[in-house]
Amino acid sequence: MGDQEVKLFGLWASPFSKRVETALKIKGIKYEYFEEDLSNKSSELLKYNPVHKKLPVLLHNGKPVCESLVILEYIDETWKSERSLLPEDPYARAMARFWAKFIDDKCIAAMWSIRRSSERPEKGIEELTEHLKTLENELKGKKFFGGDEIGLVDITANLIALWLGVLLELKGIELLTKEKFPRLCEWIDYYLDHQIIKETLPDRENYREYLSNVLKG
Amino acid sequence: MGDQEVKLFGLWASPFSKRVETALKIKGIKYEYFEEDLSNKSSELLKYNPVHKKLPVLLHNGKPVCESLVILEYIDETWKSERSLLPEDPYARAMARFWAKFIDDKCIAAMWSIRRSSERPEKGIEELTEHLKTLENELKGKKFFGGDEIGLVDITANLIALWLGVLLELKGIELLTKEKFPRLCEWIDYYLDHQIIKETLPDRENYREYLSNVLKG
Repeated sequence: MGDQEVKLFGLWASPFSKRVETALKIKGIKYEYFEEDLSNKSSELLKYNPVHKKLPVLLHNGKPVCESLVILEYIDETWKSERSLLPEDPYARAMARFWAKFIDDKCIAAMWSIRRSSERPEKGIEELTEHLKTLENELKGKKFFGGDEIGLVDITANLIALWLGVLLELKGIELLTKEKFPRLCEWIDYYLDHQIIKETLPDRENYREYLSNVLKG
Repeated sequence: MGDQEVKLFGLWASPFSKRVETALKIKGIKYEYFEEDLSNKSSELLKYNPVHKKLPVLLHNGKPVCESLVILEYIDETWKSERSLLPEDPYARAMARFWAKFIDDKCIAAMWSIRRSSERPEKGIEELTEHLKTLENELKGKKFFGGDEIGLVDITANLIALWLGVLLELKGIELLTKEKFPRLCEWIDYYLDHQIIKETLPDRENYREYLSNVLKG
């Protein structure tokens, strides 16, 4: 693809930013990274994502792409000769999109409900348990959601691999255990042990301290 | 594509079902339609969409696809030789996905807030106004969101072309007017006047009566 300008506006603690970084690294695409300050959003962020004013924003040769799942598909379609994030077969692609949407719609809603709640968030825990059971079932016979390799669904599920565990720990909720979710826990081990993921996701202790302060605030 | 079994489980009053029907008709794909009864969901619906138990479900040669936007992309990728719903260029595809997601996330949330509210739903109206302004701006210089032809974003925006107007009328809210949103109103006229759309969307009066009963209920 020759000389290309690829810039990413992100946040170190955001699973959505980290999705994009993961995809760029898996594809081996060089990019320039700009850490944003959400309490003082940059003029670039406001200019490139005027609709949502949110991270992440990918800037490719001056053209912005927003919304992490949209960016992942854009990266996959733009750098086609690199390893694919989505399978080739249309039905398998539809299934990957279905699960990515499931994680974004259902799991995140339950996680937010738990995060916001000041008391024990029974409803959020109940919903999340159901969603995790659904994902546990989806992992039957597979190492990654994408099969033998990390794909779009794995990258989307990064928030279950790291962010969810920290949230549950800080809230004192025992849920994501090897007894209850053996396949998901094994998937988390495989995912976090992948070299590119290790280089990309935030350090667990740093994020724990960050979220602990956010929850206190 | 030869002999194929294409079945659609849908609901006549659902904009999400109608998205799929519209896409199938634009592509010229023959399908068998099954009207569902939401108060008594069929065993097929529960079998083919066990995660959400929702409509629409597309069954293609025995394999189910769920979630209307996922189905639209599946149809576009499976019947490639027919007219495309998404543009070819990766950046234009990303923009289409961005706007489809915007409609599904933002506009629908505001519409639901208005629909659920028993009193005058000021917050929902305010949010919806902002979202419609954003869409109005996006239509600058274009006949359809997809350009000269109906594309994925237009099909997704069907609920603004028909369902929103009926909701606002029944709620006594004057918002989607030619004075406030000239381009959107012109788009609605173009969209509803398209032969395939006329054949696909529900009759306005029938839907008005249906929603009126739902809101009373």
